[in-house]
Amino acid sequence: MAVTFARGFRAGTAACGIKAFTTGASAIPRDQKDDLCVIHSAYPCDTGGVFTTNKVKSASVVIDQLHLQRNRVQALTINSGNANACTGAQGFRDALLMAKLSADRLDLDPDQVLVSSTGVIGRYLPMDAIKPGIAEACDGLSSDRGDAAAKAIMTTDTVPKTAHVEVDIAGTRVRVGGMSKGSGMIHPNMATMLAYITTDAAVEAGLMSGIVKSIADRSFNQVTVDGDSSTNDSFLMLANGAAGNAPIRAGSKEAEQLATAITKVAQDLARAIARDGEGATKLMTVRVRDAVSDEDARSAARAVASSSLVKTAVHGGDPNWGRIVCALGYSGAELALDRLHLTIGGLVVFERGAGIDVDLAAVRRAFEQPEIEITATLGLGDGSAEAWGCDLSEEYVRINADYTT
Amino acid sequence: MAVTFARGFRAGTAACGIKAFTTGASAIPRDQKDDLCVIHSAYPCDTGGVFTTNKVKSASVVIDQLHLQRNRVQALTINSGNANACTGAQGFRDALLMAKLSADRLDLDPDQVLVSSTGVIGRYLPMDAIKPGIAEACDGLSSDRGDAAAKAIMTTDTVPKTAHVEVDIAGTRVRVGGMSKGSGMIHPNMATMLAYITTDAAVEAGLMSGIVKSIADRSFNQVTVDGDSSTNDSFLMLANGAAGNAPIRAGSKEAEQLATAITKVAQDLARAIARDGEGATKLMTVRVRDAVSDEDARSAARAVASSSLVKTAVHGGDPNWGRIVCALGYSGAELALDRLHLTIGGLVVFERGAGIDVDLAAVRRAFEQPEIEITATLGLGDGSAEAWGCDLSEEYVRINADYTT
Repeated sequence: MAVTFARGFRAGTAACGIKAFTTGASAIPRDQKDDLCVIHSAYPCDTGGVFTTNKVKSASVVIDQLHLQRNRVQALTINSGNANACTGAQGFRDALLMAKLSADRLDLDPDQVLVSSTGVIGRYLPMDAIKPGIAEACDGLSSDRGDAAAKAIMTTDTVPKTAHVEVDIAGTRVRVGGMSKGSGMIHPNMATMLAYITTDAAVEAGLMSGIVKSIADRSFNQVTVDGDSSTNDSFLMLANGAAGNAPIRAGSKEAEQLATAITKVAQDLARAIARDGEGATKLMTVRVRDAVSDEDARSAARAVASSSLVKTAVHGGDPNWGRIVCALGYSGAELALDRLHLTIGGLVVFERGAGIDVDLAAVRRAFEQPEIEITATLGLGDGSAEAWGCDLSEEYVRINADYTT
Repeated sequence: MAVTFARGFRAGTAACGIKAFTTGASAIPRDQKDDLCVIHSAYPCDTGGVFTTNKVKSASVVIDQLHLQRNRVQALTINSGNANACTGAQGFRDALLMAKLSADRLDLDPDQVLVSSTGVIGRYLPMDAIKPGIAEACDGLSSDRGDAAAKAIMTTDTVPKTAHVEVDIAGTRVRVGGMSKGSGMIHPNMATMLAYITTDAAVEAGLMSGIVKSIADRSFNQVTVDGDSSTNDSFLMLANGAAGNAPIRAGSKEAEQLATAITKVAQDLARAIARDGEGATKLMTVRVRDAVSDEDARSAARAVASSSLVKTAVHGGDPNWGRIVCALGYSGAELALDRLHLTIGGLVVFERGAGIDVDLAAVRRAFEQPEIEITATLGLGDGSAEAWGCDLSEEYVRINADYTT
C-alpha cells in the first residue's frame, strides 16, 4: 500500500544508524529502526514537485530541482536522521552521491533519482553508513514494502502516515497512494514535511508539475504545527502510466478527476501530519467560508490554525473565541466584524460584531473533544478553505527543548 | 517616576474589580489590585500614537485614533482586566463614556482624553465598577503615583515596567519617562502591548506623530513573545512643554536628540516586556548586522526571536544553531549562506556556508545564561537591527491553556 499501491512502484528500506552516526556514535545501535528507503518505478515518471520557500535549502532540495528539469525520474532515495542542510559544498557532493549510488544499483542515470533528507541540520551525512544502506534497499525492492517505507522516513512522528484511493477515469481503474512525514516544525510552507504521492495513471508530460502547486495549496500548505518553515520540505508527485489508460491531457475532465483523487490523498496525509503534531493531543480543523477569495480564506484558516493562543486554548479546553477573532483579524484576509459568523464544534459563539450568549459549558465540551472544528463564515464572497492544526501542549515544549542532545 | 518623571504629569489609580465583574462576580474581590489609572498633564500635549495592525481593533483604539486628530490630548484613562474588544456598538459607547467621565472630572473636553483597555476579549466593560474608579483616580492624581500606574495596567505581567532618562537639549534639562505592559500575546505588531512615554520637552505641533512610528519600529515592534497581534496594542507618546525649552522643530538636531532619548526609554520598556514574557525564564537579544537594509535586518531579527523552535531550544539550553539559520532563511530578508557569520553568546558557530567545529559544551553554557545574545552578520550591506524575545517554556502553555476560566 502507500507509495506502492499504484502499479509499477516498489519500495525497499534499510537501517543505517544515520542519526546515531551523525551525532558521533561509532557503531550502529542494536535496535536501529529503518532510516533509509528507495522507491522505484518500473517506468520513467511524469513528476511534479514543490519545495520549501526557505532561502536556506538543503542540498537534496537543490539537487531535486535540478533533476526535475529533465522530467524522467524513476526513483526516490530518502533518509531520515540527518537533514543534509547547511552543509556547504560537501552537502551537495553527498546528495549527488546518494543519487548516483542509487542510480548505479538500479541501472538508471543519476538525474533519474530524486533524494530527500530530514533530521538534524548542520551535520554531514554519514555516507559510510548510507552507502551499504542504499544497496540493501535497492536489493530488497518489493511492492509489499510501501508501509515499511512510510516508517523509514519518520523522525519525531509517532505513527507512519499513508493514504490511498482508487478511481475510474475514462473506464480505466487508476490508483493513487502516498506517504508523508512531519510532526514538529510543520507550517503552511511545509516545514520539515516530506510527502510523496504515486499514481499509475498515464499522463502527458508536464501534467504533474502543472497541478502540484494547487494541490499543495489545498493540503500540505494548510497544515501548521509551529509556524517554522524548514530547509527540507518537499512534496513530490509521480505518475508512471502503468494503468495503461490513454495519457491524460492538461485541462481535460480526466485531469480534473485525477487531481481530485490526488488531492484526496494529499489532504488525508496533511490531516495525519496535523494530528501527529509534536505533543499534539487534538486535531483542529478550521474552515473558512464566504471569504473574498480562496486565497483570503486560506490565509484566514491558516492564521487561526497556527495561532499559539488558539492552540493553547484548544489544549486547555478554554472557550476563548476572542483569540479566534483576533487571529482572523491579523491574517490579512478581508474581514467585516458585523458579517462574521463563528462556530466552535457547531455552536454559534459570535455574530454581528459581538460575542453572543452561549452555554459556556457546551462550548467547553466542544473544545474537549479529540477533534475540534472551528468554522468562520466571513459573509463577503465565495472563497473557502480549510486548514488543519493541533493544540499546543507542554509536551511540545519538552520535545523541542532538547532535540539534538 | 515612570510616566510622572517628566514635569507636569500626574497619575491616579483605583481598584475597580474589572476582571472579577467581567467574569460574573457580584462583589469586588477583597484583595483587588489597582486596575484603572488616569494620567493627567498640566498642559495640552503634542501626541503621537501607533496602534495594532489587526483588522479587529478594540473600541478604545478606534476612539483614540479619532481623538488624536485634534491633537490636544491632556489625559489618558487605562483599564486592565477587560479589553473592550469585539463588543460591538456597546463597546464604542463604553469607551466614549470612559473618556467623557474622565474629561468631566478633569475639566477637559472628551476628545482631550485617550482611553486604553487590556484583558479578556468579547465581554462588555463593567461600567458600574469603572465609573467610581475614574472619579477616585482623578481625585488622587499625584506626581508620586507613576509607579502605581505602571502596576495598575498589568495583566499577566509579573513585574511593572518603567523607564526614564534625562537629557540636555539646547541647554534645557528635558525629562522622558514611560511605562509598558505586555507579557503573553506580544509580537512584532505589538500584541496586547500597551506603552506610554511622556516628556516635558516643548515641541512644535506634529513632531510626536512624525517620529512615533520609527521609534516603535526600533523598540516595541521588535519584541515578540508568541507571534499573535492583539486587538488592543497601543503606543502613545505625549510631550507637554513643561521644560520650557524653545519648541523643538521636526528635522532639527534637537529633534534627533529627543528622539534618541525617547528611543532609549522605549527600548528599555520593550526589553522589559520580552524578559517578562509569559512563562519566560530567559531574555533573548537577537542582533542582525550588515543586512541589505534596516528593514531586512528587522525582519531577520524578528524571525529568529519569534521562532518557536529557537525559543524552545533556548529554553532547553540546546545549541541547535541550525534552527537560527533556518529562521533567517524564511524571514524574507536577503541572505547568502556563504557570507553569514553567526555567534551565540559570543561563540562563532556558523560561517562560510556551514557550521564549524565548536566546543558544544561552551555553546551550551552560553545558552544556559539568563540572557542569550545571538548575533547574525549577513555580510550584505549596512542594515542593522535588534529584536528581543524570550524562551518558550512549559509554563507558557499552562498560563495560556486556561486564561479566561
